[in-house]
Order: sequence, then structure tokens, then C-alpha cells
Amino acid sequence: MDLQQPTPGGTLNAMKARVLTQALPYIMRYHGRIVVIKYGGNAMISDELRQAVMSDIILLSLVGVKVALVHGGGPEISRTLERLGIPTRFEGGLRVTDDETVKVVQMVLAGKTNKDLVALIQKMGGRALGLCGLDGGMLAVKKVESAIDLGFVGDVERVDTRPILDALASGYIPIIATVGTDASGQAFNINADTAAAAIAGALGAENLIVMTDIRGLMRDPRDPESFIPVIQVSEAAALRRQGAIDGGMIPKVECCAEAIRRGVAKAVMIDGRIPHAILLEMFSDEGIGTLFTR
Amino acid sequence: MDLQQPTPGGTLNAMKARVLTQALPYIMRYHGRIVVIKYGGNAMISDELRQAVMSDIILLSLVGVKVALVHGGGPEISRTLERLGIPTRFEGGLRVTDDETVKVVQMVLAGKTNKDLVALIQKMGGRALGLCGLDGGMLAVKKVESAIDLGFVGDVERVDTRPILDALASGYIPIIATVGTDASGQAFNINADTAAAAIAGALGAENLIVMTDIRGLMRDPRDPESFIPVIQVSEAAALRRQGAIDGGMIPKVECCAEAIRRGVAKAVMIDGRIPHAILLEMFSDEGIGTLFTR
Amino acid sequence: MDLQQPTPGGTLNAMKARVLTQALPYIMRYHGRIVVIKYGGNAMISDELRQAVMSDIILLSLVGVKVALVHGGGPEISRTLERLGIPTRFEGGLRVTDDETVKVVQMVLAGKTNKDLVALIQKMGGRALGLCGLDGGMLAVKKVESAIDLGFVGDVERVDTRPILDALASGYIPIIATVGTDASGQAFNINADTAAAAIAGALGAENLIVMTDIRGLMRDPRDPESFIPVIQVSEAAALRRQGAIDGGMIPKVECCAEAIRRGVAKAVMIDGRIPHAILLEMFSDEGIGTLFTR
Amino acid sequence: MDLQQPTPGGTLNAMKARVLTQALPYIMRYHGRIVVIKYGGNAMISDELRQAVMSDIILLSLVGVKVALVHGGGPEISRTLERLGIPTRFEGGLRVTDDETVKVVQMVLAGKTNKDLVALIQKMGGRALGLCGLDGGMLAVKKVESAIDLGFVGDVERVDTRPILDALASGYIPIIATVGTDASGQAFNINADTAAAAIAGALGAENLIVMTDIRGLMRDPRDPESFIPVIQVSEAAALRRQGAIDGGMIPKVECCAEAIRRGVAKAVMIDGRIPHAILLEMFSDEGIGTLFTR
Amino acid sequence: MDLQQPTPGGTLNAMKARVLTQALPYIMRYHGRIVVIKYGGNAMISDELRQAVMSDIILLSLVGVKVALVHGGGPEISRTLERLGIPTRFEGGLRVTDDETVKVVQMVLAGKTNKDLVALIQKMGGRALGLCGLDGGMLAVKKVESAIDLGFVGDVERVDTRPILDALASGYIPIIATVGTDASGQAFNINADTAAAAIAGALGAENLIVMTDIRGLMRDPRDPESFIPVIQVSEAAALRRQGAIDGGMIPKVECCAEAIRRGVAKAVMIDGRIPHAILLEMFSDEGIGTLFTR
Amino acid sequence: MDLQQPTPGGTLNAMKARVLTQALPYIMRYHGRIVVIKYGGNAMISDELRQAVMSDIILLSLVGVKVALVHGGGPEISRTLERLGIPTRFEGGLRVTDDETVKVVQMVLAGKTNKDLVALIQKMGGRALGLCGLDGGMLAVKKVESAIDLGFVGDVERVDTRPILDALASGYIPIIATVGTDASGQAFNINADTAAAAIAGALGAENLIVMTDIRGLMRDPRDPESFIPVIQVSEAAALRRQGAIDGGMIPKVECCAEAIRRGVAKAVMIDGRIPHAILLEMFSDEGIGTLFTR
Repeated sequence: MDLQQPTPGGTLNAMKARVLTQALPYIMRYHGRIVVIKYGGNAMISDELRQAVMSDIILLSLVGVKVALVHGGGPEISRTLERLGIPTRFEGGLRVTDDETVKVVQMVLAGKTNKDLVALIQKMGGRALGLCGLDGGMLAVKKVESAIDLGFVGDVERVDTRPILDALASGYIPIIATVGTDASGQAFNINADTAAAAIAGALGAENLIVMTDIRGLMRDPRDPESFIPVIQVSEAAALRRQGAIDGGMIPKVECCAEAIRRGVAKAVMIDGRIPHAILLEMFSDEGIGTLFTR
Repeated sequence: MDLQQPTPGGTLNAMKARVLTQALPYIMRYHGRIVVIKYGGNAMISDELRQAVMSDIILLSLVGVKVALVHGGGPEISRTLERLGIPTRFEGGLRVTDDETVKVVQMVLAGKTNKDLVALIQKMGGRALGLCGLDGGMLAVKKVESAIDLGFVGDVERVDTRPILDALASGYIPIIATVGTDASGQAFNINADTAAAAIAGALGAENLIVMTDIRGLMRDPRDPESFIPVIQVSEAAALRRQGAIDGGMIPKVECCAEAIRRGVAKAVMIDGRIPHAILLEMFSDEGIGTLFTR
Repeated sequence: MDLQQPTPGGTLNAMKARVLTQALPYIMRYHGRIVVIKYGGNAMISDELRQAVMSDIILLSLVGVKVALVHGGGPEISRTLERLGIPTRFEGGLRVTDDETVKVVQMVLAGKTNKDLVALIQKMGGRALGLCGLDGGMLAVKKVESAIDLGFVGDVERVDTRPILDALASGYIPIIATVGTDASGQAFNINADTAAAAIAGALGAENLIVMTDIRGLMRDPRDPESFIPVIQVSEAAALRRQGAIDGGMIPKVECCAEAIRRGVAKAVMIDGRIPHAILLEMFSDEGIGTLFTR
Repeated sequence: MDLQQPTPGGTLNAMKARVLTQALPYIMRYHGRIVVIKYGGNAMISDELRQAVMSDIILLSLVGVKVALVHGGGPEISRTLERLGIPTRFEGGLRVTDDETVKVVQMVLAGKTNKDLVALIQKMGGRALGLCGLDGGMLAVKKVESAIDLGFVGDVERVDTRPILDALASGYIPIIATVGTDASGQAFNINADTAAAAIAGALGAENLIVMTDIRGLMRDPRDPESFIPVIQVSEAAALRRQGAIDGGMIPKVECCAEAIRRGVAKAVMIDGRIPHAILLEMFSDEGIGTLFTR
Repeated sequence: MDLQQPTPGGTLNAMKARVLTQALPYIMRYHGRIVVIKYGGNAMISDELRQAVMSDIILLSLVGVKVALVHGGGPEISRTLERLGIPTRFEGGLRVTDDETVKVVQMVLAGKTNKDLVALIQKMGGRALGLCGLDGGMLAVKKVESAIDLGFVGDVERVDTRPILDALASGYIPIIATVGTDASGQAFNINADTAAAAIAGALGAENLIVMTDIRGLMRDPRDPESFIPVIQVSEAAALRRQGAIDGGMIPKVECCAEAIRRGVAKAVMIDGRIPHAILLEMFSDEGIGTLFTR
Repeated sequence: MDLQQPTPGGTLNAMKARVLTQALPYIMRYHGRIVVIKYGGNAMISDELRQAVMSDIILLSLVGVKVALVHGGGPEISRTLERLGIPTRFEGGLRVTDDETVKVVQMVLAGKTNKDLVALIQKMGGRALGLCGLDGGMLAVKKVESAIDLGFVGDVERVDTRPILDALASGYIPIIATVGTDASGQAFNINADTAAAAIAGALGAENLIVMTDIRGLMRDPRDPESFIPVIQVSEAAALRRQGAIDGGMIPKVECCAEAIRRGVAKAVMIDGRIPHAILLEMFSDEGIGTLFTR
């Protein structure tokens, strides 16, 4: 063979091999560690993005990372409530959840969104198990305290990590829908961001990755140059007090901050609109999102 | 103490102890064995009966029986379809299932019925995990062949028992909703009776218990005296040809027969309207239902 | 079937199922816990009571309780000593035990009483292993110190729980005869009550159940109304100082108190003359005996 | 140091090391294998010989051999029966065993002989567990068929090896007294030689060593020169037909032959009157006894 | 963020993620399987190529492939022999190996080449263990039979796979130098190609990858167009008879053919001069070398 | 048999059995413990002594001692360096090691000395694995600090005991050559005595045995009567200050002292010129060498 005259395929291949090789230090860094991914937004709506995310987590699981996916289910819940003629009301970014609503939330989240993701991973060759906070009593909640009664909206009080760890130990990717129960067995809706933070903390995760629909945190949301690659939790709180963090972002920021407070080593907010944003974040030094640190 | 003067409580207690003692040989018989329970009908609708069933399976799991519960979800599915304005049509006892319908079926079965049962068991002190045929690729189906196109109604082609056995090994009662997927990843509704038979066969179950809303098989449905306590599979086929088995019963009878053909040791049809029918069947020699044998 | 006309069998069965169901919370409470039973008195002499006790412990072992049975052997030892022409003498409720006597004690306890119980359990379908304090060096003793030389009567100095835990882990009910050895290898007789307390303490047992031939502790032994259902260890000591506890009861009371001091959660003195007294105690809230607490 | 002038201690030590070194190939040969030792005769009566035997089996267990000791208890049983005034009768070398007798046999064998051996091993630093055929239902027997009714004398019908293997796996030397039970739970005396053969066969032992009070098999019992180091089972049968094997030896010969028939690789009859006869047999090529082969 | 204006880094990253994603099906295919790599030639001489090979096998081990590396050591052995003044002679491509030579071969292969590779992998973040055929008696050889006496050159007679499997089970990449011993303990040199085939066969490897210094098999070595991507073992034999396979290639071809005969699923000859040739072969459908099939 | 007339073989055998029996308490003492042996000097040069040492460690491994052998390779390294024409220089008992030299050291130690010992143990029926400090990154070193630059001579900074413990757990005797690497991957020679002390300390060894070519420590090297059987580390330091410990002995003394400082229970210097010195030391109360204590 004349190495002087590489075929186009040869060129491509050399590049391909180089990329795989460059991934090596990142694979080593996360091998055997737990990574929790909060999945939502556009990455959940677009077919192409959804496939890219599932492909990323299958890849992570095969290279020895213990991935758990925590998801919400926004639009699908609203659509179903609407079709069922159940009126929806939001207060401070949180859905007011009466008895009828919480039943629909559970049904859609745990039966539709969750199991569809499981089916997609299985179809793509991965192995997944669809869990919700009711399974094995995973998420014990108490009613959210607030000025306006939000109904059956709960805060995570205790995470029983056994169902998640059992699934990981048996070789499955656990896909987690964020409904839980209080002591009386009543189901509650839980904000997926705060649930993800609580789960990541309870699991002692190495990394919490929160998928959003923006590039990351900005000092000035109108100025792309003001993107913040790394921020301390305390600084994020200051920014928020200054009003630099807009409404929709607050739960994401709070989620990352909470995870750090609960002992997670790294919490990152990434742009879920970019295909394979998870790999781009995890398999490079600079990452692509905003990293929260202590 | 004067044993001659037992207190009323004492009398009750003595009886209570005798009953527990009488349960001993039955506990020994099933200890460490797999028992699949097909749950449905009135036992699923009535709160009291539902609690009694869950209490029975928690008890079985605590005395060392490996119980798996397979459930359908009839009325809840129909109610949701109706509220969503999706028309339903049945053919030969099987729901004609278009794309929209199968999505609702999955959502209700796997997200509502299934997880509600899990929550109930957890609340009562047991440990349960809610699975459907999508989890870990448990139920691989192919489209039912029939003269009338039934849409996304599937026959179980292969059961991957690992998600069930993993759950049992980790100490959970697996609760199984009977939706599955074909090779393309398309979800299918599966008749819960036939799914239960396939699952029991694949697990090498000791016993399949099918809950119905009648006392059992009758030679003459109008004559209570004609109740059949034990029947051979071949004899059941003959009865069916004679028209002695009415429409609604056919899937139940077929389910028991199929389980026996797949190697399950015992298949029993019991009256789910009787509280604790499962214990009454398993913890007595004569049982309370119709036992199918080879 | 006409549910309005239950058959007599049906009535019985419904009751039976209800009893089993009522047992559920108690099974949950003790599932996976260690319970030590001190067996003796009439429950050991009467064939019917003996069978009831063995039936109870087989049942407990099948519902996941880790039961260890500690037994004495009173009458059988005396009868054998008598037949062998060896004179017996008691001092303060303790047998004065010369070299010839301790040999007979070991022989009868470990070879006759112990192995007969093992054979009975095996015959009834359970799995048992007959151990004594010599096996695996389980019971290390030192000579009892007392004004009168009691000969080879020992106090437990150290319990090596491994032979008991190994037997439990392999699925056997350990049946334990209370002879032990000192450092020189000399065999000693040990009071079965105190041995049971030491064993329960060393095992970190949830419960020690001491079978006696009276109903329980009385404030006034002549007045059945003065029965004490629950007593603190300190109060029991006071009662004893007041002379309210008669001679034969002292070792039982001391045994319960000692177990509590060694960290056992509950110690109960029950009336072994009542069939299935163990179940009646463990499977009800009120119990049937006198419960000692800290 | 001047190696030319070894001290007496040095000489002894060099020899000592050489002996240990010579043991190496034999240790390798038996490492991890099961060896059953039938213990009886003078080796059981003499204190010195008894200690030597126990020392041998502790050594074997420490060098990785899985030793199980099966013992009879002749003289002690007769002595106790006599003291209890129970008359004894032998038929064809087998004790006629009425109900009273079998109770004494069990008591002495399982409670005295067995546990004394356990205590001796423990005292010498080994770890032992005393079992009899009743424990875990180890020895299932049926009544010996013979012209004269021998009473409760049984043949081993089935060996449940689990109690023995459980003890070995937990690091104990199992010491086995040869009483068993029939299906009704009735205890039976079993000839220790035939029990040892059955146990060795069921365990798939590498070696059965039968301790006797003679040097081994002789072609002519009066001629020491006629000692037989190796014999085929068929040849032994011929010798017996010729009357060359005297009465007392018949059970030993039969025991070895039976073990070979049940698949034991080697069965050896050794002279238990020689201290450390077990080591002398196992740790040399030529052995010291008569080896039975297929 | 404006997705319309990707930064150059963004472009690169997207490509990078796509490459990783494309690797997914290949990772799944080899996950948990054993792959043996015969390492030699230029890939061993060039620093850059050596690093690329080690990077490839670390990557494979992290994505769950069980890789074992078998290496020769050509130039380094010759150089050392020369420096030591030991003359070398080759016969039919095999080194004539006298006693002095085999000692140097072992020393260089097992002490230098082997451990240098281990050190390189460790330095790059992988975990490796350096073994040769002497360790655990891994490679039992017999003298090669040939017209000319080749001295201590051996054929593998038996592979004890335990040292390799133990290393894999403990998480190491086993690096294997191909010296072995005969029954007398004499060391032998073994051709690394044939040793690799024997090892791959004994391990039941999924894949044997043989690194060479040519592009692969050609029908006409002078015509690059005649490259053979897939060939049957029988066809390769025919080509060899036709003289189309030149001398240096014969051992490589024979190695692949032998592996297939010993049950390895796939054997591939790849061009070790291409960086990351292993990944290029394993992570694409077409591969880059010549695949031998049954 | 007439026991009065023992045959010579008989006498020998009885003695042999007695010796094995006397070994029992020592076997018990070391069973399951880790013992590190620093092997070197005459015991490595003489064929007979080498065989005796290997025989000793095989015996120890079979009686349940976890033996690890650490070796140097003095003469063989010098011989090879000489043959290769590489000049050698010593400073303060340590070889000055340039780049070329350290490569030869590694090659000879890890490829020749180490693997020859492995082959010898395997040939004698043991199971061994040849490791060096590069395997699994076992020995991390830093350059020795000294007035004269010693080149690539390293001090052990950190021992990763996993490769050693993995080998022991898999049933191999680990044979360890003392080369290591610094953070850059550069190989370093390590004094085998100090490496052995570091390894013994890291393993929490019960015993470190250092083989020398003298009888042990003497108060006056010229007076055999001044032999010191037991010495405190502090006292050894005093002796050294007094000049009573000659040059060659300093590393051995320092090695024992260092092991004691690192928590090894016993460190003994024994005379490797005596065959089976290891057994003579370990299998007697008095030992044969100089024991260092805290």
C-alpha cells in the first residue's frame, strides 16, 4: 500500500480514530462514576435531538459511566390536560396541581414520556428501565409550602436510592419520572429540576448535567459575549438578586446550586438544542455550558 | 393463670394461631417458587378487594414466594379514551387499537394502573417495582393475525425474563403492565391473560392464578352444582367446542390452557370477587377455583 | 356463584384468610430479625405443646424470621441420673454438678433432648441443626462463683456467634443445648435461662422469648387480676426485693432483665402451657406475656 | 557462624525441615479434596491415640484438605446400657436395638462421643462442628432386612450432604455420629463403617480411611509376612469366600469395597493403633495400610 | 446563542460527537467480548505508532472489551544477542535457539519489551499486567519438529487461560510475552503469531487481530488493486500453494487460519503502519485489513 | 503386626509424623496471614538452596500462608552488564545507575531472575506469577536523594498493593522484582531490601523475613557467642552508631527496622545459607535468626 496516497475513506478514518483517542482521558475521568442528567426542553421535543441524547447516554453507559436520566414532561402533560378538558394554572413557574391533575401528570410522565424513552433506548440497542418516584418508594415528598396553595406539588424529603442502584447494578439505564408520594401514599408532582438535584445528591453523583434551551448563564442575557463558563454558587445567588437571571432560568440555576450544596462534585447547565451536547460537555476540558462550583 | 377460664381474646387467639399453623404446609410448598398472578376484573375495581389482593401478595412475598403480578386495565382505559374523545371498537373480545389508542393504552396501563398498584403496595409496607413490556425489552411482540385488522394488538413472541428476575432478586414485587414492542420499536397492546400465560411459562412458574369475576368453570353456567374443581386441558377444549364456555370466559380458559402447554405446573382460575381469593386458593388443598392440569 | 349463600367451608376460609392478613404487620416487623426462644417447662414435656412450639418456629423461619432455640432439659437429666444411680443435689435452684453429673448432663442435653428436637423439626418439614456450646467453641464459660461449690456449673463469659450465624445463613434453625467449656476444655453445665440471655445479647436479637409454666409476672401471685403485661427492668428488681417474685421465677425474671441489659430490644416471659404461645405473643400488639423493657 | 559445627538443635531442625519438605507432594495431592475418616477402635479409646488422630485431622484441615470424621462409639454405648440395666444382644456383629436401646445409642453417640471429640479439637486449636444423621435430615435410613429382627438398625438410603458441605464451607471439621431416621422420624442406629462408606460416596470423596485395630488385610492372619498392601475389590470378595477374612474384619472390608463401588477414588484400611496412622498413610507413597482398588 | 453562527470550535465539536456516536454500534458489538491482538512490526518500533496502539487498547478496555495483547520482540532480541556476542541463525523464518539464546530471548521479551509496554500503558492511565508463558504455567510447549534442529523453539501444546482470565477479571490488560516451558521446566521461544492463535483459540476470542507491515493480503503483491478484504481459510491455502503469499507473510496467514480452525470467530490481518489501525478495523463495517473466515 | 518390632521405615515414619504434628501450632499461627520474604544472597545462587527456598514457600502457601517473595538479582545483573560492556560503579553499597544500566537491570531482574523463579515454582508444582513494580503501577518511586548522583535509583514512595493482593486472591505466589517508575514513567532500580520493607508495610504483613549470608546480628562480628536472637529497633540503631554493624549488613538491618516502623509485626534476619531456613525460622518458637522488635 502506498501511504502517500490516502483514499478519502482513509483520511476520514484517521480523523475518526483521532477523535476516539481524544475521548480517552474523559472516559477515564468518568469511568465507574455516577452522572445524573436532567433531561427536558427542546432536547425532548425534537426527534433528532432526542435520538442524539439517547445515543449519548447509551455511549456513556457502555464506556462504564453510571448514568441516570431524570426527566420532566411539560408539553405532553399540558396537551393531555387540555384534551381531557382539565384547566391548568401556573404560579411562580409551578403548576397548580389538583387531585385530577396530579393523576394525569403521573399517567403522562410515568406511562408515556418515561416508557417512550425506555422503548427508544431499547430500540437503539441500549438497556433501560423506566422508574418513577413511586417505585420502591424512591421519592418521599412533603407538600411544597408557599403563599398560594399549589395543591399536590411536593418537595423531595428523602430519596431511597436502592431502586436506582439496583437498576444500575443489573446493567440498566434508569429513566426516572419525577412523581413521588407522601406518607399517606398520595401522589405528588415534583419539579424535575429540584428532583434531579436531590437524586444526584443522594447518589453522590460526580456530575449533574441540566439540559436547558439557552446557551448557558449570561451576565447580560442580551449580550452573547457575556456567557459565563464557570460560576461559584455564591456568585450565582448574587446575579439572581441583581435580576440578571430571568424567570425561566431560576429553577435550572437553583437546581445546579442545590446539587452542589448536596455534595455533587460538578453541576453543569448545557444547551440542549445542540446535538450531542452531553458528549460535548463531558468529553472536552472546556465543556460547552455553565459549570457551577462551590 | 386459670386455663379453664379463657378470656374472649384468648379464644380468638387460639383460633388465630391454629389458622397460621394450618398455613404451614402450604407455605412450605410454595417457598422459593415463582407464582404469577393475572389480576383484573372486580378485584381491581373495588377498593376493598384491591387492598385484599395487595395484602395477599405482600404476605406471599414475605413468606418466600416469588410473586409477579400481571395486570390489565379495562375500565380505566375505556374511560380515558372516552374523555379524550377517541372512539373504541372491540372485535372478538379484543380492542381494535389504532395508533392514538395504543398510546393511551400504554399511558393508562403503565403510568396509572401500574404505578397506582405500586404505590398501594409501598403504602401497605411491601416493596414493588412497576414494569411494562418495554422495560428492558421484556415483551417482544408481533402483530396479531386475524381476519379483521385489530391494529396495534400483539402476541407475545419472546419474553426476556431478566427485568422480572432482577426485580425479584432485589426484593421487589414486580408489577407488570402488558404493553410490548415489535422489532421496529412500535408499541402494541397485549391481552393481559395471554401475556400472563407467556410470562408464567417463560419464568417456569409453579403456579399461574387467573382472577375472574365468576366462581370458576361450570359444565352448565346456570347450574351452580356443575362447578368443575379440576379439569384437563383437553377436556376444556372439548367443553369449549360444545359451547359450554361463554364468550367472556374464553380468554381466561385459553390463558390457563396456554400456561400449562408452556410448562407451568398448575394454572387456576379463581373468583376475584371473594376477598383474599389468592390465599384461599393457595393455602388449602382443595382450593377455591378451577384447576387446569395436563 | 351466589355469594349470598356461602358454604360452611367458605365461611371458615374467609376467616382463615382474615387471620393470615392480620398477621402481615407482625411478619413485616420481624422479617429478617433475630429472635431467640428459651424453650423449657411444660412446653417441652407435653407432646402436643412440643409440636405446637416446633410448628411455630418453623413458621417463623419460613416468614423470614431468624429463630434460634435455646433449651434446657430438666426432667430427662434427672431421670437419667437416677437410672444411672448418680445422686442429685440442688442449691439455690442450681444443680450441684460433679464430674460424673456434667458428663450425663452433656450427654442427655446435647445427644437426646437436642437431637430429638432436631428430628421433630425435620419430620415436620423444617430444617434444623443441633448445636451445643462446645460446637465451634460457641460458649466459653467460667465457674460460677458462689458460697456453696456448685461444681461444674458455669457462667457464660463469651459467646462465639459464628456457629449460630453460619447455621442461620445456611437456612437451618439452630437448636442450642447449653453446655460449654472453660479454657482447659472442661465441660460445664450452664443454666439455660442465663445462657439464652447471653446468646440473645451477643446476637443482637430483636426479641428474647422465655417460655415458663405460669401466665407471667403477677404483683400478687395469688391474684390473677394482678398480672403485669409490661414492666421495666428496674421495677422488676424492686418487686423481687419485696419478695413478690417466687423462687422458681427468679431465673426467668433475671434472664429477661439480663437480656435487656445486654441490648436485646424486647424480652418477654410467656406461658408455655398455652399452645402456640409464641405466635400469640409475636403476632399481636398486646402479646400474651410479661414484656420487660428498659 | 561456623556451619561446620552444627548444634544438636541445628541437626534436629534440618531434619524437621526435610520432613516438612517431603510432605509437600502429598499436601499438593490432597489440597482441596474431600477425605472421609472412619474413626473407631483403639484410636478412640487411648487418650494418646485420640489426641494424635485429632492433631492429624486439624493438620489436614489447615493444609487445605476437607476432612469429615465419621465415628462409632462401641464401648461407651455398652457401658451406658449396662449401667442403665438395659441388656444388649449382638447378631452377626450388629447390635439388636430395641426402642430403649436406640435412644441410649443416640444419646451416647451424638451427645457424648461426638461432642467430646468436638471439644477436644476446639481445645487443640481446630474448629469442629458435631453433627449426627438427624441434623438437616442428613442420613435417611430404612430398616436393615435380615433373618433375625435387629430392631432399629438401619441402612443408609440417602445422604443429604448439605449439612456436611455447609460445615466445611464455613471452615469447620464436621464430626459425624451415625444415627439416622426413617420417613416416620424414628431414630435408627447405623453401623458406622457402612455409614462412612455411604457418606464418602455421596461426597465424592477422594479417599476413605478406615481405622482398625489390625495392621491391615492378611492372606493368612497368622502370618505377618502375608500382609496385603493393595487389593482389588473383586479379590477381596474372593478372599472372604475363602474364609481368610475373619468376622470382626468383615464390616471394615465391606466398608472399603462399598466406598469403591460408590465411586470413592481410594479406600484404605489402616492400623489405628499406630500414632498418627492417618498422616503416615496419606503422606507417603507406600502408605501403611491395605489399599482397596477397583 | 445564535445557532446560525457556530464557532470553529463548535464545528469541530459537532463532528467529534458524531464520530463518537458512530462508534456506538461497534462498541455494542464487542462489549464484554475477548479480543486478542498480535502486536509486532513497525507498530512496535515507532514511538508514535506504539503510543497509538496502547491508546487503542486502553480505549477498548474502557468500553468493555476484554483485550489481551500478545507480542514478539524481534529487533530488540537481535540487538541484545549481537551486543552479547551471541551469533544468531534463522531457518525458515524461525530463529535457531540454543540454550544461551533462549535465555536472552526470555530476558528481553519478558523483562524489557513486555514490561516497557506495561509501563507505557500505566503511564497513559490504563492498567496492565505483564505476563509470559511461564507465569502460572500459561504456555505448555513441546519442541518444534523440523528437519533442521531449531533448538529451544516450541509449539504451544496447551494454554492455561487462568492467568489471563484472572488478570482480565481484576481489571488489567494482560500483556503476554511468548516464551513457554516444556514438562521439564526448560524455557522455549515460541513464534508470537502461532502463540497468539493458540491463545485466542483457548480463550474463545471473538476476534484475533494480527498487526503486520503490509496493507493486507494481495492476489498480486505488486498490484495494490488486488487487495483482498475477505478470504476463506481454504482459499488462503490455495493462494499459498500458488506462491502468491510471500515468505514473510506466511506466519501471519498461518496464524489467522489457525485461529479460525481453533474456533475464533474472526481473524484479521491489519496494517500496523497506519496509526490507530486497531480502531479503524474494529470500529467500521468494512474494516481496513484482510478478514479470514471459515 | 508386632508393634514391638518396628521396622526402620516404621521408626522413620513415626518421627516424620511427630515432626508434622509439631508444626501444627506454627501453621495455626500464620494461617491466613501475609508473610513477605526478601530473597537474595547465597540462597539465590546455589541450586540446592534455591530449590529449598521455593519448596518452603510452596509449603507455606499450601498451609494457608499468603507469601509474597521480593527478590534482588545482584550477580546476574553485573554479569550481563559486563558482557554488554557497560561499566558499573557502586557508591555506598548502591549501584550508580545510568539510563543504559537501568534498562539492563529491569531486563535481567524482571525477565530473567523473576521469571526463572516463577518457572521453578511451577515446575515444583506450585503456582506463581512474576510481577515487577511496573505491573499495575505497583511501585511508585522518587529519585534517591544523595550527595553523589546515583542516577536512576529510586525510593519507594507509594505501594499499590492491588496487583499483589489480586495475585494472592487468585491463588498465585507473587514473585516481585524491585524496579519501579516515577510519575514520568521512567524506570528506576530500587534496593530490594528497602522495597521489601515498604511492600511488607503496605500489605500489613505479619512477618518480614530477610535472607542474608550471615548467621544474624552479632554484638561482636568475630565472636559467634555474641549472636543476638532478639533486638529492639532502637538498640539496633545504637549498635550501628557504635560501628558494630558492618557495611554489607546495614541495608538488611535498616530493612528490618523500616518494616517494624511501617507496622509489620515481626521482622527477622535469617541465614539463607542454611537449607530451609524459612521453615526453621517460622516453625519453631526460638527461630534461627535475629528478630527485630519495636
